[in-house]
Amino acid sequence: MTRIVDNETPAARVEARYALSGLEYMQQLMAGELPPSGMAQLMNFRIVEVSEGHAVFAISPDERHYNGLGIAHGGLGATLLDSALGCAINTMMPPGKIFTTLEMKINYVRPMRSETGEVRCEASVLHVGGRVATAEGRIVDAGGKLYAHGTATCMLFRS
Amino acid sequence: MTRIVDNETPAARVEARYALSGLEYMQQLMAGELPPSGMAQLMNFRIVEVSEGHAVFAISPDERHYNGLGIAHGGLGATLLDSALGCAINTMMPPGKIFTTLEMKINYVRPMRSETGEVRCEASVLHVGGRVATAEGRIVDAGGKLYAHGTATCMLFRS
Amino acid sequence: MTRIVDNETPAARVEARYALSGLEYMQQLMAGELPPSGMAQLMNFRIVEVSEGHAVFAISPDERHYNGLGIAHGGLGATLLDSALGCAINTMMPPGKIFTTLEMKINYVRPMRSETGEVRCEASVLHVGGRVATAEGRIVDAGGKLYAHGTATCMLFRS
Amino acid sequence: MTRIVDNETPAARVEARYALSGLEYMQQLMAGELPPSGMAQLMNFRIVEVSEGHAVFAISPDERHYNGLGIAHGGLGATLLDSALGCAINTMMPPGKIFTTLEMKINYVRPMRSETGEVRCEASVLHVGGRVATAEGRIVDAGGKLYAHGTATCMLFRS
Repeated sequence: MTRIVDNETPAARVEARYALSGLEYMQQLMAGELPPSGMAQLMNFRIVEVSEGHAVFAISPDERHYNGLGIAHGGLGATLLDSALGCAINTMMPPGKIFTTLEMKINYVRPMRSETGEVRCEASVLHVGGRVATAEGRIVDAGGKLYAHGTATCMLFRS
Repeated sequence: MTRIVDNETPAARVEARYALSGLEYMQQLMAGELPPSGMAQLMNFRIVEVSEGHAVFAISPDERHYNGLGIAHGGLGATLLDSALGCAINTMMPPGKIFTTLEMKINYVRPMRSETGEVRCEASVLHVGGRVATAEGRIVDAGGKLYAHGTATCMLFRS
Repeated sequence: MTRIVDNETPAARVEARYALSGLEYMQQLMAGELPPSGMAQLMNFRIVEVSEGHAVFAISPDERHYNGLGIAHGGLGATLLDSALGCAINTMMPPGKIFTTLEMKINYVRPMRSETGEVRCEASVLHVGGRVATAEGRIVDAGGKLYAHGTATCMLFRS
Repeated sequence: MTRIVDNETPAARVEARYALSGLEYMQQLMAGELPPSGMAQLMNFRIVEVSEGHAVFAISPDERHYNGLGIAHGGLGATLLDSALGCAINTMMPPGKIFTTLEMKINYVRPMRSETGEVRCEASVLHVGGRVATAEGRIVDAGGKLYAHGTATCMLFRS
């Protein structure tokens, strides 16, 4: 597939997003045709599934993600959840329609550690209206054990 | 000041926390007598103020923190807020009493970019009971402009 | 079935709860063997389904529930959701174990009006640990249209 | 002061709101020149203070507001908070601009009972932008003791 735009800079990546539907954009990201965001590289998470209304991100927690108590910092779960919730909503956006996250809420039910292995954050759209969308997501390990869950509210608008 | 324990490993850092009050621990962290957590190093944030019931963290957003839309990823604000809220609560914990964050909620009111410059996340305790504590925080720039705000609920217990 | 205790007063109703499992208590409430709470009577909602980890409440919004904008007040959805989420968690409590709600979060996605007809608030447990439980719920009409959704965090303890 | 519209019906009350600024509308409600909403009458709460960016509601919890555990139902605090947060935001709306609550989050830190006496829910605007506003509020008793706190996110639009 031909890259439709230069994507070496953040500005170029934003342009790319506006020319594609949200789902096409996410699919190109997952296929490696668009580079991962700065935060995805920094935290080392990646998209592993994307379809209409759904997105799954994965990460393997390690000591770089730890807080002062020897477990993954709450920011790890929050970053992963924010990504997955936003992308689930993004998959419902036609070309030229974008969103911004108004708020996110996360519940932590178990600590994540390096021994936890890879976790998946599975997100699904709950509601998409003309101006607002909401989504929910859960972070689970390979055995399906729940580590965190949460929701987000996004506002939709024309780019 | 003499370091009271070895702190080269996450396990040692957790030991340090249990022997100190939360406020002493945060003060040692701020003074550089205890090493910053993995996540603080990865994201490049730091503690800049700490007192009973209050904590302030600072960070300068840059492109490493960006999402695919050319602004700081929601995870940046969430990580900063989770740190500051938890530390504000930590300052109220006597030696041997620790906490775990049950949930956090963040509202995003303006995007953060590298041009934003350094932002501060100022957190204050709202309630400390025997088993539960809550705190609120705000992310503001050098001019006092608000970027995000949120709250967290923590459960308290003996180590 | 014999009522195991007098239940004419709030104090007596609390006693009843402590002698039963949460599920038995909810089943007696649904069967009319225990009187509805003050708030259930005031707002006119009722339990319509209860099983392990699940609870459904129903209400028909009317003008008594309205705010100043001619739609059901946000407090209606919040009261219904708080009831259903708490009861879903209650169904998992053995005799002598009770809970208190630490926090609740609700998203409003459509207004409810008297024309909406009866709505159901369907709640399910997400996590039950030794000290904390979480649940999620949704308010839907007879056609399955979504009006609100939310989550709660509860702390568990021995009575 | 002359009532500017008939206000005997919910529809008429909505008309009144559109012709006034939010602050004027709230002031007329507080002065008794507009009738309280259905929910305010049902739950027995009232506006006691209103100014630009601020609103205070008051209620005396009684057994009609109780849940099955002999304390005020979580819906009482949520209803009061939703009212106060929305009204604080309403005070910032010019004539013709209205809002809808997207989400609300409440933390319960102490139970309310009839012995608690009158409580006040004090709400303040945190952010008002062109399309979104947020507010925070706290429920306190006559001695300033905290019972609950929370925040809401509202979307703003032209009527």
